[in-house]
Amino acid sequence: MSIVDELRPIFKPESIAVIGASRSHLKIGYETLLNTLVGGFRGKVYPVNPEAVEIMGLKAYPSVLAIKDEIDLALIVVPAQYVAKVMRECAQKKVKGAIIISAGFGEIGPEGKRMEEEVIEIARKAKIRVLGPNTMGYKSPVDNIDASFVFGMANPGRIALVSQSGALCIGMIHYANAERIGLSRIISIGNKADVDDADLIEYLDQDDATDVIAMYIEGIRDGRKFLEAARKAKKPIVVVKAGRTKSGAEATKTHTGSLSGSDEVYDSVFRQVRIQRAYDVEEMFDCARALAYQPPARGKGVGIVTNGGGAGVILSDWLEDMGLSVPDLSKKTKDDLAKILPAITLPRNPLDIIGDAGFFRYWAAGNALLEDPNIDILILICVHAGYARPREYAGAVLKLVAEKKHLNKPIISCWVGGSEIEEVIQSLKERNIPVYPSAQRAARAAKALYDEGRRMDLMQKRAKHAKR
Amino acid sequence: MSIVDELRPIFKPESIAVIGASRSHLKIGYETLLNTLVGGFRGKVYPVNPEAVEIMGLKAYPSVLAIKDEIDLALIVVPAQYVAKVMRECAQKKVKGAIIISAGFGEIGPEGKRMEEEVIEIARKAKIRVLGPNTMGYKSPVDNIDASFVFGMANPGRIALVSQSGALCIGMIHYANAERIGLSRIISIGNKADVDDADLIEYLDQDDATDVIAMYIEGIRDGRKFLEAARKAKKPIVVVKAGRTKSGAEATKTHTGSLSGSDEVYDSVFRQVRIQRAYDVEEMFDCARALAYQPPARGKGVGIVTNGGGAGVILSDWLEDMGLSVPDLSKKTKDDLAKILPAITLPRNPLDIIGDAGFFRYWAAGNALLEDPNIDILILICVHAGYARPREYAGAVLKLVAEKKHLNKPIISCWVGGSEIEEVIQSLKERNIPVYPSAQRAARAAKALYDEGRRMDLMQKRAKHAKR
Repeated sequence: MSIVDELRPIFKPESIAVIGASRSHLKIGYETLLNTLVGGFRGKVYPVNPEAVEIMGLKAYPSVLAIKDEIDLALIVVPAQYVAKVMRECAQKKVKGAIIISAGFGEIGPEGKRMEEEVIEIARKAKIRVLGPNTMGYKSPVDNIDASFVFGMANPGRIALVSQSGALCIGMIHYANAERIGLSRIISIGNKADVDDADLIEYLDQDDATDVIAMYIEGIRDGRKFLEAARKAKKPIVVVKAGRTKSGAEATKTHTGSLSGSDEVYDSVFRQVRIQRAYDVEEMFDCARALAYQPPARGKGVGIVTNGGGAGVILSDWLEDMGLSVPDLSKKTKDDLAKILPAITLPRNPLDIIGDAGFFRYWAAGNALLEDPNIDILILICVHAGYARPREYAGAVLKLVAEKKHLNKPIISCWVGGSEIEEVIQSLKERNIPVYPSAQRAARAAKALYDEGRRMDLMQKRAKHAKR
Repeated sequence: MSIVDELRPIFKPESIAVIGASRSHLKIGYETLLNTLVGGFRGKVYPVNPEAVEIMGLKAYPSVLAIKDEIDLALIVVPAQYVAKVMRECAQKKVKGAIIISAGFGEIGPEGKRMEEEVIEIARKAKIRVLGPNTMGYKSPVDNIDASFVFGMANPGRIALVSQSGALCIGMIHYANAERIGLSRIISIGNKADVDDADLIEYLDQDDATDVIAMYIEGIRDGRKFLEAARKAKKPIVVVKAGRTKSGAEATKTHTGSLSGSDEVYDSVFRQVRIQRAYDVEEMFDCARALAYQPPARGKGVGIVTNGGGAGVILSDWLEDMGLSVPDLSKKTKDDLAKILPAITLPRNPLDIIGDAGFFRYWAAGNALLEDPNIDILILICVHAGYARPREYAGAVLKLVAEKKHLNKPIISCWVGGSEIEEVIQSLKERNIPVYPSAQRAARAAKALYDEGRRMDLMQKRAKHAKR
């Protein structure tokens, strides 16, 4: 059976049994049932609780065995010591997939680990794939499914998020919402007792709703399996691998019980399979946003248009730091620019169109650089300076993105300013334009698009090689 | 004459002549006059314009010589070719200081350079110190003086900003306002034909309104003078030195006409005099904010309190990257923590007080770590997770900052979340609590406080040595 078929009951269920559903709103079993209902799930939901007759207007069942219909997904929230019993009943009921939200397993020590193994053994024999234990569950904004115990939904979008930290998972949803970054699925991977990072990479790589896979990882158990899945992936993967220092590794031990392993090994694995490594959540989203909504770059030449000289200098420094270049413009571009720019503006790269530029100069400059064969990536800077016209620049950015799609060159924006232009920035982000508030972050995103281009080259080469 | 006396007419004038004041609101001479008036300057303002009788309700003078009163500051906005004549009149009038806003001097090439030298020669003979040419001017929120041609004022605060880029200067004011970072003076340094970075370091180091000096620099001409001023400075200095790569250096040439010089030399100079180097505007403000409002750190031990484990891991990694440490807690702290924390929480560093922590646990954990002799810096993380209570955490942060001042240990916050907690974050920033949205940035700020502590140690050692 393919991974898509195996995980379908978990991520595309038609019926969910919430085992441990509770009437007390202080309990996780209450929140979980509530979320499946308010999330907008269109299938059937069955609360299982031996002490209740009805919960939230739904008939409650004493056990999963008492439900007559087929159950795709068991969402298990009973205390750890009862999970084995519940899993046995799920096996008997021929439930197809399970999520164990309950904590108190491998992450707390050897005794928990033993219980975890027992539960997984039961599930494996019954061919039930399991997410967790010790997971927040998952949320699928694209399918209106909230199979988690924490309230709050992300906006739908093209980035899938996999996190080994539950709290961070929620923090990242809030972050993404504020940044107007849409997510396809947010999966809290928990203890990875069964479904692991490699499974999710393989699954999400075939998921129509997902274009980029973003992951927060503290430790990977089966390196070979991970490597294999990542190597085969057609979609870009961005990973924050935490616990990369001695202090960080110590912290992961008590957090998720992970052995975070040698960072040199991880780093070399990531390089081998062209996984983009980020070192913080912000950087992960910065890269993912660009990768989801801009084409990969064919080369390392970056063209810069700026209404403030200093910002162009800082960005040039950062681009060179990242291994990209700020090449000279072609003769034709220079001639074209000379016609449209005021006399004191020099037709060079970075192109300082100076403080009083309006829509036309901003747009025309961006257009000329985009058409230049030396330029593979365009970065449009807006410094919120005294005579800047942010609304006009935003219009120019949108026009370039819309009308120059055929050139297939990525366009990134770098807007340095304050809360007064925040609304304009948000309106660009809502239209999936990657906008960054600093030169460093814009340069990092450009690097991600360059690296993705090289990964594409490599995959094409491999495909050709395979054909011969 | 001391630098404070020399620059007093420029930065603390009692009378300003705006030479080139204009009635046409499209001209810089109009904006400049307007700004001096609306900025709230309490001294006298004299518009100088041979073609006008009255501008903005003020009597206009044909030349500075026609003004009867003494003039402290001449704000010169006439075209470049007339500046020498104007400066001669200023010399004759015994004007005490000048700002040349006009562009078209050294930054445009040899001919401009010649004019610049001529003007400065006239000023020097008359003992007039000159800011510029090619400067935006300056703004002093602490004194209500706006001697610039670009509208917009910063909030008053303890950080002085010196910028070689005019547009970036304004962008940085907007950025600071949005970040609730207060500024004492914002000085656009222009071509540095007379007053240069070293002068401003010396001046601002003696300025009661300033605690931290933040600078954007593309090139320094007199390295020895700069070194001397920086070495003597009692206040911390944070510098973005742009043009540090080949691409960046090329860009500075056309931007400010700076020769940005060997970056290795700059870097070694900065290290020698313990200047904190930042690589982007955001990083510069992150450091400056911490330095302005938190004490320097006595050692490298960082204590972390977090409501989300993953964020603690990422932060630990970053701290170790920066050369700081996440030390074990003392026996006493562990015993104290055991009494106040729930059973599943381990008394270790980073201290994960888990997702359901409220005010008391957050405060008590922070308090215990602050009292620990192994801890020199406290970082309080708030992940905007499902069960987090941001308002309560903010209260705990404020209480710790207010009540633990005597411990003289820096307290930093790292809040990872979305726009929903933005209001709480802003309220902390308004009370000068350094809050950062990512582990990387919080760690960088901690490093700045550690480095400042080492600079203090060095200065004390030097002072002792000098006494003997």
